[in-house]
Amino acid sequence: MTTTVRTQVAIVGAGPAGLMLAHLLGRAGVESIVIDDRTRDEIEQTIRAGILEQGTVEALLASGVDTRAHEVGARHDGIELRFEGAGHRIDFADLVGRGVWLYPQHEVLQDLLGTLLPAGQDIRFTTKAERVEDVDSTQPKVIAVDADGGTLEITADFVVGADGSHSVTRKAMSGSHNGLYREYPFAWFGILCEAPPSAPELIYSNSPNGFALISQRSDTVQRMYFQCEPTVDPNAYSEAELWEILQSRVPGTTLKEGRIFQRDVLQFRSFVARDLRRGRVALVGDAAHTVPPTGAKGMNLAIADVLLLDRALQAFFHDNDTRLLDAYEQTALHRIWKAQNFSWWMTSMTHQMPEASGFDRMRQLGELRSVTDSRAGRMYLAEAYTGWPVDLHI
Amino acid sequence: MTTTVRTQVAIVGAGPAGLMLAHLLGRAGVESIVIDDRTRDEIEQTIRAGILEQGTVEALLASGVDTRAHEVGARHDGIELRFEGAGHRIDFADLVGRGVWLYPQHEVLQDLLGTLLPAGQDIRFTTKAERVEDVDSTQPKVIAVDADGGTLEITADFVVGADGSHSVTRKAMSGSHNGLYREYPFAWFGILCEAPPSAPELIYSNSPNGFALISQRSDTVQRMYFQCEPTVDPNAYSEAELWEILQSRVPGTTLKEGRIFQRDVLQFRSFVARDLRRGRVALVGDAAHTVPPTGAKGMNLAIADVLLLDRALQAFFHDNDTRLLDAYEQTALHRIWKAQNFSWWMTSMTHQMPEASGFDRMRQLGELRSVTDSRAGRMYLAEAYTGWPVDLHI
Repeated sequence: MTTTVRTQVAIVGAGPAGLMLAHLLGRAGVESIVIDDRTRDEIEQTIRAGILEQGTVEALLASGVDTRAHEVGARHDGIELRFEGAGHRIDFADLVGRGVWLYPQHEVLQDLLGTLLPAGQDIRFTTKAERVEDVDSTQPKVIAVDADGGTLEITADFVVGADGSHSVTRKAMSGSHNGLYREYPFAWFGILCEAPPSAPELIYSNSPNGFALISQRSDTVQRMYFQCEPTVDPNAYSEAELWEILQSRVPGTTLKEGRIFQRDVLQFRSFVARDLRRGRVALVGDAAHTVPPTGAKGMNLAIADVLLLDRALQAFFHDNDTRLLDAYEQTALHRIWKAQNFSWWMTSMTHQMPEASGFDRMRQLGELRSVTDSRAGRMYLAEAYTGWPVDLHI
Repeated sequence: MTTTVRTQVAIVGAGPAGLMLAHLLGRAGVESIVIDDRTRDEIEQTIRAGILEQGTVEALLASGVDTRAHEVGARHDGIELRFEGAGHRIDFADLVGRGVWLYPQHEVLQDLLGTLLPAGQDIRFTTKAERVEDVDSTQPKVIAVDADGGTLEITADFVVGADGSHSVTRKAMSGSHNGLYREYPFAWFGILCEAPPSAPELIYSNSPNGFALISQRSDTVQRMYFQCEPTVDPNAYSEAELWEILQSRVPGTTLKEGRIFQRDVLQFRSFVARDLRRGRVALVGDAAHTVPPTGAKGMNLAIADVLLLDRALQAFFHDNDTRLLDAYEQTALHRIWKAQNFSWWMTSMTHQMPEASGFDRMRQLGELRSVTDSRAGRMYLAEAYTGWPVDLHI
């Protein structure tokens, strides 16, 4: 059975980018349908990024998302860079007068769904996009399959691919893997544990044994990561071994241990799609780019894309003005490549590269000293970490 | 025939580091003998680095060197970073209230020799150090051969190796090549030409064809460089070809051409010796470390070493206090690794790496945009370029 519907904007993917775009467009009177192959529960339970730039929280609030970031989240006014056994605080509040919010992605998704569904937004869960067709026409289509095996065909004035790193929208625009890549020769081993915080702020630790990130989730649950081989089996270590590894990588801090109730391995990969827009189809978020997790740019970059594309689509639908759509790719890429650089830089300063020579290792420590010795260096890092402003007046 | 002499400090090498150290020690009443295998004329005509940090000029002046830096040199209050066809000025005066001096190394050498020789400093030209002996004793020796083939044996309380990258002093301390290296897969092709300046300040240009540096010497002589293969023959190009290459790498500027009267190929290499001091022997300048020319840290780093070692030797000879000598290696290395990082960073941001992927290239442009978009980023670069202060109170 085939159901056909039409809308102004078909949005593939109900992650933070797709839902935020539907929300912004809806407020501006532009109609959209969002589809996602997951259930609402699955979406709301995804364990992903946990750091929001201040500008991201401000954008959620300003657009009327019923977010609990200020109640459930925790504002962090700095991070610690640790190397050679000593901690060096990057004091965001002092350096740039901004901060970040520790507020995990699944909370953002709950906020967005909790705002959109009561307002009547059309969101089709368990509906898997199979392909995007008629990309070069004025009426592109999304062909999807619903939970019962029925076909859903959405004809739209514009299709947005917010469908993550395996985007079918991207596939229709320029081929699945068409873009620029960088692979990293390591991954992150992540754990969630039942324990009080070991530190008040995130610790990015460069140790001779490899990188570790000591992060927080709440007063009783903590998130920690350590650099590992990309092929490691998450079950290869006992809990005692995991604590030993983590502890050895943050000399100077005694970690508060507790039951480890989740383990995962995050692959490190950078990607930027060749095309961010083709005619009446555009990409946002992970469909357009992947960043390694160091520096926490992923979700923030997705929201920045959405803020740009929302303005462009409003101008298109309200005034038939395509100038912002025409500028979307270039404007978004300016920020995306800065964010790719920042993610690479934070990674390269803090991780042990398997191919690094003794010279490279000492230069890396020289770089960490250069940044932490200098107020300008710390400020340059803090500006990027807390987020560059989104310039919507282009 | 063997001549034996004794002194407090035997200094191997009459480059900027060795001569400056002799000068500072002499002022403090510590006696030294300097030897060098070149003639005075050869030393005074060496074409080398051309940029002095403001702190280096201040150190020359404060120590009473009869320098013409302020008359013959030109103060530069900024540089230009050029990429994607557009120039971005790094305004040192505005950012850090300091500048640099365009004042070539051979001028500094003329100043130092013009100050030292009339004051009676013992400098032995055309005297080649063969080896350093008794490194672990309290009376280390330098064995040298003079122009007539006679042997000169200098017994000293302390030996300083200021004898460049092929240092025989280093060889005696820890072996010729014992240290940490980085090789670069390119070199600089340098020219001197008779022409007016093409730009008022240095232009560091990242172009798709490779790096170029447009530099100046005087109103009538200019120094320019371009990235080339390390194995290139300096005579492989006609003058017209050289101008074509240079011109293609600074889109947006029309270079003022003129007769090219010198060509040379500068190898790119980073090195830090394993030991900067062993007992009563120490290294300064290129004997201790080599930096690639990007960022012009070589001579400045040598003078910074000398300022530290001078204080340490004064404390040793006047007060028999070895604490600063014991700290010399660690104190000097702090700055050296920051300078190695800065030289690597300036190189990596501006050169085309043969192994770079499309991703790497776009990330590099993202880094250049990140630095130039941000006042903090420009300030971080300007601080390093104009020189970190030398902390002598350690």
